[in-house]
Amino acid sequence: MDKILRIDMGAAGGPKMQVESLGEYAGLGGRAMTSSVVAKEVPPFCHPLGGENKLVIAPGLLSGTGAAMSGRLSVGCKSPLTGGIKEANSGGQPAQVLARLGYGAIILEGKPQGDDLYKVIINKDGVKIEADNSLKMMTNYDLVVRMKAEYGDKIACISIGPAGEMKMQSASVACTDPELRPSRHAGRGGVGAVMGAKGVKVIVLDDTGCKARQPKDLQKFREANKKFVEGLSRHPVTGQALPAYGTNVLTNILNEAGAYPTNNFKTGQFAGAGKISGETIAELETKRGAGPTHACHRGCVIRCSGIYNDKDGNFLSKQPEYETVWAHGGHCGIDDPDAIAMLDFLDDTYGLDTIETGVAIGVAMQAGVVKYGDAQAAINLVKEIGKGTPLGRILGSGAAVTGKVFGVEKVPVVKGQAMPAYDPRAVQGIGVTYATSPMGADHTAGYSIATNILKSGGFVDPLKPEGQVALSRNLQVATAAIDSTGMCLFIAFAILDQPDTFQSLLDLLNSFYGLELTADSVTELGKKVLKTERDFNKRAGFTKEDDRLPRFFYTDPVLPHNIKFMVKDEELDSLFDW
Amino acid sequence: MDKILRIDMGAAGGPKMQVESLGEYAGLGGRAMTSSVVAKEVPPFCHPLGGENKLVIAPGLLSGTGAAMSGRLSVGCKSPLTGGIKEANSGGQPAQVLARLGYGAIILEGKPQGDDLYKVIINKDGVKIEADNSLKMMTNYDLVVRMKAEYGDKIACISIGPAGEMKMQSASVACTDPELRPSRHAGRGGVGAVMGAKGVKVIVLDDTGCKARQPKDLQKFREANKKFVEGLSRHPVTGQALPAYGTNVLTNILNEAGAYPTNNFKTGQFAGAGKISGETIAELETKRGAGPTHACHRGCVIRCSGIYNDKDGNFLSKQPEYETVWAHGGHCGIDDPDAIAMLDFLDDTYGLDTIETGVAIGVAMQAGVVKYGDAQAAINLVKEIGKGTPLGRILGSGAAVTGKVFGVEKVPVVKGQAMPAYDPRAVQGIGVTYATSPMGADHTAGYSIATNILKSGGFVDPLKPEGQVALSRNLQVATAAIDSTGMCLFIAFAILDQPDTFQSLLDLLNSFYGLELTADSVTELGKKVLKTERDFNKRAGFTKEDDRLPRFFYTDPVLPHNIKFMVKDEELDSLFDW
Repeated sequence: MDKILRIDMGAAGGPKMQVESLGEYAGLGGRAMTSSVVAKEVPPFCHPLGGENKLVIAPGLLSGTGAAMSGRLSVGCKSPLTGGIKEANSGGQPAQVLARLGYGAIILEGKPQGDDLYKVIINKDGVKIEADNSLKMMTNYDLVVRMKAEYGDKIACISIGPAGEMKMQSASVACTDPELRPSRHAGRGGVGAVMGAKGVKVIVLDDTGCKARQPKDLQKFREANKKFVEGLSRHPVTGQALPAYGTNVLTNILNEAGAYPTNNFKTGQFAGAGKISGETIAELETKRGAGPTHACHRGCVIRCSGIYNDKDGNFLSKQPEYETVWAHGGHCGIDDPDAIAMLDFLDDTYGLDTIETGVAIGVAMQAGVVKYGDAQAAINLVKEIGKGTPLGRILGSGAAVTGKVFGVEKVPVVKGQAMPAYDPRAVQGIGVTYATSPMGADHTAGYSIATNILKSGGFVDPLKPEGQVALSRNLQVATAAIDSTGMCLFIAFAILDQPDTFQSLLDLLNSFYGLELTADSVTELGKKVLKTERDFNKRAGFTKEDDRLPRFFYTDPVLPHNIKFMVKDEELDSLFDW
Repeated sequence: MDKILRIDMGAAGGPKMQVESLGEYAGLGGRAMTSSVVAKEVPPFCHPLGGENKLVIAPGLLSGTGAAMSGRLSVGCKSPLTGGIKEANSGGQPAQVLARLGYGAIILEGKPQGDDLYKVIINKDGVKIEADNSLKMMTNYDLVVRMKAEYGDKIACISIGPAGEMKMQSASVACTDPELRPSRHAGRGGVGAVMGAKGVKVIVLDDTGCKARQPKDLQKFREANKKFVEGLSRHPVTGQALPAYGTNVLTNILNEAGAYPTNNFKTGQFAGAGKISGETIAELETKRGAGPTHACHRGCVIRCSGIYNDKDGNFLSKQPEYETVWAHGGHCGIDDPDAIAMLDFLDDTYGLDTIETGVAIGVAMQAGVVKYGDAQAAINLVKEIGKGTPLGRILGSGAAVTGKVFGVEKVPVVKGQAMPAYDPRAVQGIGVTYATSPMGADHTAGYSIATNILKSGGFVDPLKPEGQVALSRNLQVATAAIDSTGMCLFIAFAILDQPDTFQSLLDLLNSFYGLELTADSVTELGKKVLKTERDFNKRAGFTKEDDRLPRFFYTDPVLPHNIKFMVKDEELDSLFDW
């Protein structure tokens, strides 16, 4: 992982690649890598779909090693959705494979001169870039079948579906899981549109002949990894709840907390929650011959990803994540698990962010385009997106554009990005993260739910404004650091609650790289990443006025708690004063 | 003009009106009135379509008097298109009639509780507000026929078409001309969507029984008006060019200057310009039994508005303005005058800003939705807007949204508002106005074309960055003042070039109100208005980074001059340092 693959897609005569040393980016991984490259190399005022933007794809610091949970891949650029800097990360195999192949980053840059569509094939022998227009408008699932036929089943793919080719603002970058399903996505912010604007359909990775990256101190590394895995198994969230039900274990929890946004944030509880909860869906999956316990990448020990079969026992989709179940479920008043799984599959195969897509459909429901609760209508709408009809183009542009186009007042977005599955009035801490994260509304950027609701890392009352800024600040800093390691964010529960598990993560990094990192070093790394991102956004014209929730969260109370968002502007503005 | 009509459309039990004294708004007119009310009463973060926004309708200081050219009506609100403060003004009869009825402003506020559509009828006996759902989705032209049948032909109407009811971001507010054609529009920024959000379809004004407003010093007022009219007749632009050809006299001039944006700002000259020039169209109009010389309101002496008949001699539309001819013409590669007149009519009757609509269609052409030059396709697209189909909704949301939805990089907007008919690379002064005006890209906000191209008020070389900021500053200040008087902006040519005509404008104000205004007072008024607007925008989150042109104007030179926009950011930022 000592080199960067840089491809100028706009070079005269076709794409031109070069392999460089890491140079000034040495020592960076994941989000720290993508945000550093974007902040340094992309003009903040450039058009996100233009030649000056770059798509940066980077495995984490521990990806490609024997460390458990180290398979996150970061994808960064200037976001077409928010206009700010973006890092979206994904599970699946590519991070591990790309890291073993030795690449610290792939940087796609320039603007293609024609309209050819390219595939990039990377293996131990080098890199090939080939035009292949037969792939145009191919869905992710079909594409991967084709790549498997051409390059064998040892590959991992990073790809876009039709949504990315159409440069839709909610287009994702798909990553394949170990069974070559393109079901893990760097979903947020329209990163797939930027890949589409670069004319790259798929990056095919094959690490056959490459070994796992070797730590400086193998013995210490193995010991640290053992303790790390043991810590994850010991914690009730990572050891029990996530493997048993996946992230969708949260449906019942959030609904009981009155923080489950229902019918476009009209109320905080959904009558149909029980029908689409993690418990219900896990039981259904098991009954249909699949199940809730599956690893999305080599080295995953939590195994929260799961497989969802249809009623005839055939693969329908991966187990939909909590935020997907919410966006296509409660947010739209839909309580049919099969419909939600179908929507999840369609999003994955067209290459769409499930959150942005579901929220956009809910906003369209608010406008009366279709009715709340009409699952078939929602499926039809996502098919329109895949076809790129005018209505599909609207929805594929995300919730903010959908709201504008249909004249809807109530549009749950921050910095143009749709809000995920937690009402910021009933969980005030997540509202702070939504408002202030450089990424736009993003639960993963500082997951206060852990402390507000799940009581990991202490407890801060979700219904009171006090303490939320400090909570979100600490979580945003920690997350920015974790997102740079390649570690799955779900390790956070265990490292928040168990000091020895946190120490084992430090030991993994230290023994691998021969470093002497402490808790303070991690905090410093997180702060540095956030500062870099905030600075890019500032140069792109963002101000504190962009660090606010939509007006209705301040004016309309939500049931059952009858509560508004109460954290004051001045407090929000103090978040980055550390 | 000593009272304000305030209507709370959101009151329990239906709209509730009250008539107030001017209070702290005494002495304000037009844009000074609308911007002061919006800045004071509208929370900068409110949703433009929500109950906290207000639509303010105000005649100018001299409207309703015997002063020539005093018929401009200002419409203000927080703009759904830009998110900033907005004042759009219109000719036609309503300003004169509203002022004679004694109203300094109408303020529509609150959020209707049901979905009834209302008409407001104002005459010397008072105000009536009535629900009339039979008007729903009626076009402006049909609506006015109905109002005439109900209220007689002495009325003037302020109305919205289907676009405003659908809350489209490019919806206009229509004003009737003396023959009751709804052909004059407060076009920009989606003011019609705000009227739609208030549930008001039409305001019917009848000043029967009301006299012209009386000046403090009648004798001096009459003398000043005489000199003022004489000055307008003497100047070649207002005395000859505008009455002979209307604003479209500019097509040949701008095309020859290489500043006529063609095919979505691809080049600065249009091969078909001669076919749609003011000279060609005026000749055609005359041949078909109409003509280029018509007054859009009582007291107009320039008479630039004109009537365009079809080939059978029947009314097709008013004479399309230069910016309309450009937006639907050269910008889209269309050189068919009949098609452009039809597009003008459709925009007027659906209630759409012709600039925003034409630019959006050009952006859709850039995306390949239809082909450049296909006039019938453009007509079909505007009909889609009128019907509110998904494609129509996209286009009706304006150029910025259209660009996002179709993944287009080259979108000529500032602050989300489409750029009018002058390439800012070939006329650098207008680029400064586009970039810095609180209104978004708006040629009228500081019409540098006067000095850069027409050599009114001196000459500043349009192809050099030097002197453009000072030019735009002076014009923006002067315009903000003129927009507050109710005077048509076209008086600017004569008052810029002829000191005695400028003095006669001051004399009109002084003799009417018993004031002692000087040139400095006018400058102070203009600065105060701009400061109020800039302050609102700042509170709404705008920064200097919003005072920039789209990136491609800085990177892609335009032919024939092969020139980029060269005014430096720091210079732009100095514009409001006076």
